[in-house]
Amino acid sequence: MARTRRPLAAPLSRSSLPLQEQLYRRIRDAITEGRLVPGERLPAVRTLASDLGVARGTAESAYSRLASEGYLVAQGPAGTIVSPSLRIEMLHRPAPLKDTSWKTDRGVREPLPFQLGLPALDMFPRALWARLTARAARRLSGALLAYQDAMGFSDLREAIASYLAVSRGVRCQPGQVVITGGYQAGLELIARLLLRPGDEVWFEEPGYFLARQELQAAGLALRPVPVDDEGLDVEAALRIAPRVRLAVVTPAHQSPLGVALSLARRQALLAWAAETGAWIVEDDYDGEFHYVGRKLPALKSLDAADRVIYAGSFSKTLFPSLRLGYLVLPNVLVRTLEEAKRKAFHGEPVLEQMVTADFLAGGHFGRHLRRMRSLYSTRRDALVRALADTFGAGIDIAGHRGGLALLARFPNGDSDVVLARSAAAHGLAPTALSSQYLGRPRAQGLLLSFTNIPEEQSRRMARVLHQALADHLPRR
Amino acid sequence: MARTRRPLAAPLSRSSLPLQEQLYRRIRDAITEGRLVPGERLPAVRTLASDLGVARGTAESAYSRLASEGYLVAQGPAGTIVSPSLRIEMLHRPAPLKDTSWKTDRGVREPLPFQLGLPALDMFPRALWARLTARAARRLSGALLAYQDAMGFSDLREAIASYLAVSRGVRCQPGQVVITGGYQAGLELIARLLLRPGDEVWFEEPGYFLARQELQAAGLALRPVPVDDEGLDVEAALRIAPRVRLAVVTPAHQSPLGVALSLARRQALLAWAAETGAWIVEDDYDGEFHYVGRKLPALKSLDAADRVIYAGSFSKTLFPSLRLGYLVLPNVLVRTLEEAKRKAFHGEPVLEQMVTADFLAGGHFGRHLRRMRSLYSTRRDALVRALADTFGAGIDIAGHRGGLALLARFPNGDSDVVLARSAAAHGLAPTALSSQYLGRPRAQGLLLSFTNIPEEQSRRMARVLHQALADHLPRR
Repeated sequence: MARTRRPLAAPLSRSSLPLQEQLYRRIRDAITEGRLVPGERLPAVRTLASDLGVARGTAESAYSRLASEGYLVAQGPAGTIVSPSLRIEMLHRPAPLKDTSWKTDRGVREPLPFQLGLPALDMFPRALWARLTARAARRLSGALLAYQDAMGFSDLREAIASYLAVSRGVRCQPGQVVITGGYQAGLELIARLLLRPGDEVWFEEPGYFLARQELQAAGLALRPVPVDDEGLDVEAALRIAPRVRLAVVTPAHQSPLGVALSLARRQALLAWAAETGAWIVEDDYDGEFHYVGRKLPALKSLDAADRVIYAGSFSKTLFPSLRLGYLVLPNVLVRTLEEAKRKAFHGEPVLEQMVTADFLAGGHFGRHLRRMRSLYSTRRDALVRALADTFGAGIDIAGHRGGLALLARFPNGDSDVVLARSAAAHGLAPTALSSQYLGRPRAQGLLLSFTNIPEEQSRRMARVLHQALADHLPRR
Repeated sequence: MARTRRPLAAPLSRSSLPLQEQLYRRIRDAITEGRLVPGERLPAVRTLASDLGVARGTAESAYSRLASEGYLVAQGPAGTIVSPSLRIEMLHRPAPLKDTSWKTDRGVREPLPFQLGLPALDMFPRALWARLTARAARRLSGALLAYQDAMGFSDLREAIASYLAVSRGVRCQPGQVVITGGYQAGLELIARLLLRPGDEVWFEEPGYFLARQELQAAGLALRPVPVDDEGLDVEAALRIAPRVRLAVVTPAHQSPLGVALSLARRQALLAWAAETGAWIVEDDYDGEFHYVGRKLPALKSLDAADRVIYAGSFSKTLFPSLRLGYLVLPNVLVRTLEEAKRKAFHGEPVLEQMVTADFLAGGHFGRHLRRMRSLYSTRRDALVRALADTFGAGIDIAGHRGGLALLARFPNGDSDVVLARSAAAHGLAPTALSSQYLGRPRAQGLLLSFTNIPEEQSRRMARVLHQALADHLPRR
């Protein structure tokens, strides 16, 4: 018995854990660390309890717990042994990772100046949103806690359908609206349901790189189609890839060039889809943000043949960490998508959907968009003026009528990748236009978001950018 | 001019919309409905304004807006014409769907008696949750509104790592924890990253049907492996499909049979994975809910070779519409998953993650689990007694030691599908065990969740079930 008792013989501590827990862990560790081996007999309960000065019941519970977990086998009067079927080499648990880099690596951080893809974070109506959230949270009970319709919360689907009719000229039933976890989640759904790996897709060149990544991850063959002053060149597309299943476009303000898809091109695209049975994804991420003249209605508003899947997102109109977007489906796709979504319960959390529905239905969304349109117009104009004053003839700013970023070109400067890298070293985050091309870049420039540059900071930011780029631009 | 003026001649209304908007719509509709055709000349601004009794500026803005949208082309002194490049047949917009069935079809509804997969919705600490939510919503600002780390909110990842170490014996770094939109979203991620369509998977027979659907949707070839009193039969699995890339198991309480995977089987499974380089998904959805004896530590706690992907979900421990789950990744998979997740910004909304992190770190989660364990134990015992008293020898209730549902067998009764259908006609929602088989069902029975049957209702529910099944059971 001496051999088996040894690993268990040290006195138990009176301080921290319950005695039974201490004893349980001691025996378990002795087994997993190989000090007690399979088939080996343990001390009798009575002996162990007396050796350690604990109650017999304490030792008994430790043994029975270890037996219930399969470490020990009670053999009646013959005593208790370590389970003969244990494989000790399997019990050595891995040492935990010492790596602590996980937390700082791409965690939450403040947005950097000129960083693309963010609304004005300083001007979001936080207090109102917090009040609506608190109110919705108090309504969470019963059926609202259970699994929800994976197509989305019905109040939100209704509110979106109403909003789209008024603001984007899109007439649809709430039943055609499906809530997604953002634009890319919607693209993934479309790729999975309507296409097969290897299918060809018309993709704008240059184009939105996150959409590109998503479609490529789905195994689709992207065919880059040049964008000119009227947006995607449909005739060129037909020459380049005459048999695609899908076209992905940004008609309001092409991402990243900012041009609007002309009415003639819109019609050509719709005619093509109607004739060939292809689908069109309309990414209307910034259709609300038009500053010069009126905003254009959505492509979907002209979609007589019902071939357009309209994709909206609240990442730019509310805020990105909300993770909410939506698709408006052609009628013929509604049932297919319902089946796929509902089968997998792939819905979004209900609370954000409730709050967003209240925000829309309460008229706050319309007001917020009007305020942001005016704010962005002001910030955009201020930045354009500041850049023009600072860079003089050394900069050429594309005349965007809308969107959330400017495109600045620097004639005879170094490559935009070099410029972006130098800016990054100064704490700025412009994006190189050339990085948005799938093929060989045909243009250079820096994409500069103005949404998070308050008017009074635009001169300072322009100066910092100028300092950052000075060594890479021609001397005046 | 008469022909072109006619469609526009009726007086404008003074009441609702601004005059410019009315005029814009009238001309646009005249074009889209074919009353004004491409190339056709419009009345001069002066003429139209005078005809309609509106200011000349009003007519001018309507024309310039239509021109900016591409409907009209201004030809200087020659006047304004309908754009010759318009394709009228494309402009007829589709009539909206008249279908209003979308809303009632699988929308929010109260859970039905015996329905699987739900925690006790009546006992969730709603007021506390609402307070924590309101507090988190007030903290939403700046960087928290922007895109977040797609691996998950760092406070939540830390809180989960601490909880797992204490409660499930799983030792991991927060960097190994990735937040998902529930268990199935986690499975989808695993299937996409680690497997290819056609890869074989060991799947418990019977098994959790939603996991089955998810894996099948990913194109995987499921190989059903029989489950006996010790859980998944590893030796049988090796005979049935010796070269699989993945095993998906529910070790705590097998879904749906409720048995625990024995220690010997756990070791055999881990040894197989270590030897072959396969992966194991441990679905620990109800590991916390064990009523007889102590709960077993997770399979992951024995995973010396780091082959187990531990999958947890808050759907059963908190509530399903939260849409939050998590995976604990083997160290070697962390970088791969980070890249894939971060590339696509496929994160979950930040607010729920903040609230859940606070709930865990504040000690509320541990208290809630203890309360639910006790509540479920009470509800389970009451239902077992009520069923035994009501059905007498006509029922055989499997001796589950944990989990969220009972398995009731009715010797010599009709098929379980017939029984479930009859129960559904009485407003009850038990699940037929045979529906959980991938191949030919080897057993019959009804799965009855007790989580939402308060103790005082168990007798009534047992009686309703008895009435519903009476015609399909042998007469005593």
